[in-house]
Amino acid sequence: MTTPPTAPRRLAVLGAGSWGTTFARVLADGGSEVVLWARREEVAREIREQHSNRAYLPDHSLPETIHGTSDLGAALEGVDGVVIAIPAQSLRATLAPHAALPEVPVLSLTKGIERGTDARISEVIAAAGGAAPARIGVLSGPNLSAEIAERRPCASVVAAPSQQLAETFAAWCRAPYLRAYTSTDVVGVEVAGAVKNVIAIAVGAAVGLGHGHNTTASLITRGLAEITRLGVALGGQGETFAGLAGLGDLVATCASPLSRNHRLGLALGRGLDVEAAAAEVGQTAEGVATARAVADLAARLGVDMPITRAVVAVVDHGEGIDEVTTALLSRSVRPE
Amino acid sequence: MTTPPTAPRRLAVLGAGSWGTTFARVLADGGSEVVLWARREEVAREIREQHSNRAYLPDHSLPETIHGTSDLGAALEGVDGVVIAIPAQSLRATLAPHAALPEVPVLSLTKGIERGTDARISEVIAAAGGAAPARIGVLSGPNLSAEIAERRPCASVVAAPSQQLAETFAAWCRAPYLRAYTSTDVVGVEVAGAVKNVIAIAVGAAVGLGHGHNTTASLITRGLAEITRLGVALGGQGETFAGLAGLGDLVATCASPLSRNHRLGLALGRGLDVEAAAAEVGQTAEGVATARAVADLAARLGVDMPITRAVVAVVDHGEGIDEVTTALLSRSVRPE
Repeated sequence: MTTPPTAPRRLAVLGAGSWGTTFARVLADGGSEVVLWARREEVAREIREQHSNRAYLPDHSLPETIHGTSDLGAALEGVDGVVIAIPAQSLRATLAPHAALPEVPVLSLTKGIERGTDARISEVIAAAGGAAPARIGVLSGPNLSAEIAERRPCASVVAAPSQQLAETFAAWCRAPYLRAYTSTDVVGVEVAGAVKNVIAIAVGAAVGLGHGHNTTASLITRGLAEITRLGVALGGQGETFAGLAGLGDLVATCASPLSRNHRLGLALGRGLDVEAAAAEVGQTAEGVATARAVADLAARLGVDMPITRAVVAVVDHGEGIDEVTTALLSRSVRPE
Repeated sequence: MTTPPTAPRRLAVLGAGSWGTTFARVLADGGSEVVLWARREEVAREIREQHSNRAYLPDHSLPETIHGTSDLGAALEGVDGVVIAIPAQSLRATLAPHAALPEVPVLSLTKGIERGTDARISEVIAAAGGAAPARIGVLSGPNLSAEIAERRPCASVVAAPSQQLAETFAAWCRAPYLRAYTSTDVVGVEVAGAVKNVIAIAVGAAVGLGHGHNTTASLITRGLAEITRLGVALGGQGETFAGLAGLGDLVATCASPLSRNHRLGLALGRGLDVEAAAAEVGQTAEGVATARAVADLAARLGVDMPITRAVVAVVDHGEGIDEVTTALLSRSVRPE
């Protein structure tokens, strides 16, 4: 509840895409001084000089307490904490060439599973950023960034290995419109946040094929069951998946026609192949790479994930979206 | 799997509203001969003579294997089974003056909790219809009737006291576009189907107040937790609520702007009182009566149901929708 008596908390946010920029604004609204690192100098300069990031957060200005830089070393200097919002598949390459992250708490906003290593993001941060797992946490929840950018009220979950560290992260997030609840289930919150993007592709595809709410609600139900199976196999707690970071995030993501993964699925459902669909969406749809990593992981662990397998079958093996969807929907399943 | 060797199965459907009429069509599409009972003779005559029910199922014709009648005794004569789709609050008054239901399996499609007695619908059928609980089942799931009327593929859950009876009901429902999964958790399926209408009012109200998907996803998450708490206290199984009859139905209902309960909530959110909101919706919004019954039941059982209490506070105690919603959203809650 207390802020430092002398200077405000100083946080580095790495990654100035939509979510990183929006969350930098949450942190600034919560009273922190924020250094926002962008890969490209022109984005950093716009943030620094014009207090905006029109490519990723159009129609919103940024507070003057957000400072833009493209110098990673400078961004990390003297900070009280680091927040990571770099896309999952480029995170290791971004962190690794740099010196280790400073010895402060590190909060991950990145959703995904790393392709090739099948690692969770907090594991990538530990390995590539030289950060002890004991000081790494994750944030996830029903948090469509477009709504948070409008400062609409929402809730999120911050998970860390210790309750004390989770409370530190919750304190960072204390903007008037965001309530951060604490958890110590890092694995559960992280898996839920990653795999929901895969289910969002499947739901988007069902909509693209012309299915209605009955079908998408069934997919969401079975999708949560498959996320939960994987999460529990990886050591997460079953209850996490019934909460805001599990069910809540999945429902928000699948409800929003704005989500990139939903839009990618929609394009697949309309019959485009994955390259054409990705081109139409424009920005990275994390769910495709995550689907591949999750399918590998599930196969290795012996976890049944038919929706994830169906997404991979369509995007990588050229199987017809309608045949795959029909097989999936007519597949025998016991409700419980 | 087998149908009678000589004559087709003959089923009575009691109640010719939207859901009863749509479901009569599912049963007819599954090969049954259906007698559809309507309270009003003009509706029965239209079904009988014109094979339509324009008031409740516009834009769709009915198969000739659906016969309309307004004579309850005649409807029940010689049938192999009874399907009940009469609104919850008028069910007892409709069944009680009549002789007992015939000694055949009885499947309830009615959603709700009876106001005054706090009884589940299967309990009302047993008491007022003179039917043994051992032959009463319930159907629930992500089943928006407008989509089923278009014969779009969907899944549902039929629950009965025995697996054998549940399979009998599943056989009735075997239309090409509906998959019925079996369960023996009658209480769980019935409570989930009833209370989801209360949560749908709350979600509609949040939308009416201008909240976005992040807020509605949080309400759905916390709504399912409160439905589950009540259902388990009444003897239902926790897993039922994570399945199609629980999560699936809740997500479908809350996603659909067509749902009466959603529309009622929307009108409340825009500032109308409950009478004006009900008048705007036109048809019965079951959730209001159920909210009152559920709030009573929860209080008696010591189950915490803050969303249900908030709905009752607004509709019955004149509390301001925005104050109640703000209190609800800012209420401290542990995600798990």
